[in-house]
Amino acid sequence: MTRYGQQRQFLKSNFHEFKHIKTDKIKGITQPPIVKPFDPNSVLIDLPKVSKDVVSNDNIFDCIDQRRSTRFYSADTLSLEELSYLLWATQGITGMNKNGLTMRTVPCSGATHTFETYLMIMRVEGIQQGIYRYLPVEHKLLFMFELDELEQKIDAVTLDQPFVPNFAKKAAVLFAWSTTPYRSEWKYDISAHKKILIDVGHVCQNLYLSSESIGAGACAIGIYDQKLIDEILALDGDEEFVIYMGAVGKKRE
Amino acid sequence: MTRYGQQRQFLKSNFHEFKHIKTDKIKGITQPPIVKPFDPNSVLIDLPKVSKDVVSNDNIFDCIDQRRSTRFYSADTLSLEELSYLLWATQGITGMNKNGLTMRTVPCSGATHTFETYLMIMRVEGIQQGIYRYLPVEHKLLFMFELDELEQKIDAVTLDQPFVPNFAKKAAVLFAWSTTPYRSEWKYDISAHKKILIDVGHVCQNLYLSSESIGAGACAIGIYDQKLIDEILALDGDEEFVIYMGAVGKKRE
Repeated sequence: MTRYGQQRQFLKSNFHEFKHIKTDKIKGITQPPIVKPFDPNSVLIDLPKVSKDVVSNDNIFDCIDQRRSTRFYSADTLSLEELSYLLWATQGITGMNKNGLTMRTVPCSGATHTFETYLMIMRVEGIQQGIYRYLPVEHKLLFMFELDELEQKIDAVTLDQPFVPNFAKKAAVLFAWSTTPYRSEWKYDISAHKKILIDVGHVCQNLYLSSESIGAGACAIGIYDQKLIDEILALDGDEEFVIYMGAVGKKRE
Repeated sequence: MTRYGQQRQFLKSNFHEFKHIKTDKIKGITQPPIVKPFDPNSVLIDLPKVSKDVVSNDNIFDCIDQRRSTRFYSADTLSLEELSYLLWATQGITGMNKNGLTMRTVPCSGATHTFETYLMIMRVEGIQQGIYRYLPVEHKLLFMFELDELEQKIDAVTLDQPFVPNFAKKAAVLFAWSTTPYRSEWKYDISAHKKILIDVGHVCQNLYLSSESIGAGACAIGIYDQKLIDEILALDGDEEFVIYMGAVGKKRE
């Protein structure tokens, strides 16, 4: 085994080796909730119905061709229609299957969709700065709280990015996807985790392309302070924790 | 630590904990090749220049909206123009950075792009059935070999898929992405592997959307026989091995 043997093993399809494992699903254990529950007394914000009218650069070939990780943003705000579209493009529900699982704009092994989307909003029209959660079933935003020193905290969470230090706080909105791995472990046991990482890549690629289609740019952030972001979002760091992040802002002229 | 503690740990941003590691890059060890070398005597097939004319369903909103994992295909062939477009959309080179690293249609941590694209071609116009490799720098196909009992071998590689058994052999083309992890380990050491999995998710989402835009459907395959596919493609299974697969075919009417 090489120096990286254990890590490389994790990248492989280990299904065969673990075929004998009885998953919690097979054991008859109740399936966990397919989305995170929320307090019905929460402050909810309606998101505009998603419409293709919001798209200014609608040719898919051009969006794929022009996509670049974008770390410089204009001071422009995103409209609420644009934010609604980005949320739909990354985690929006486009159907239900016969087992009551959600079908979304992104594929996911076994439709287990383990992600929740948290937003650090800096500049979105009609929305106060702060921390929000996307409710995909309702297609609404849940206001979580204002965060003192939002920009300094974003700097602390996103650490030093080598090319453009501290770019993330200059975005209009910062996406932070959490995973609740048991949604997939219940069905796939220890073969769940490879799939979860690939699935969040599907999500982020749609953030890149949908951003491109509204004259915005995105930049994925894979290196971040795990403990700090989980603390800020009040995630326990074991049953739910942040797995990937992405900054979005309008492009400079 | 929970039952899945070790696996869950792998999903986290562990950058902080391993900051003290001296990567091979920092040690001054030579960077590995950015793409897999090939024998200059190989049989190469020119791919048509990529053009947006090939796209029949060009609205990005519709492509995102209509995307579904597709396991039933028509008997139609893909044109070589269409295959050229799918390869470009998933791994095509759209620029070089100042360090001589490739910028592609998909983002990748540190532009390390650890993937190679292998194709099992069943029905592409003007192309004999067999196994091919994509050369992204040249934008050409390298013919590797014909494979006896191609369809039976695809069945064996893709194992039992629960919903539609043996669907993969009915695709027009089966993509198999390998990773050469050292391209990223050289720069990121043991924090490379999480990024590699996310990055192949970026790639596959572009396969989904670009397929949708030419009236085709795609289906990702995360469960496969690791040893068998690596053997078929003559990969050593350690320095290079398959990490993800995707089937593509024209949709049924």
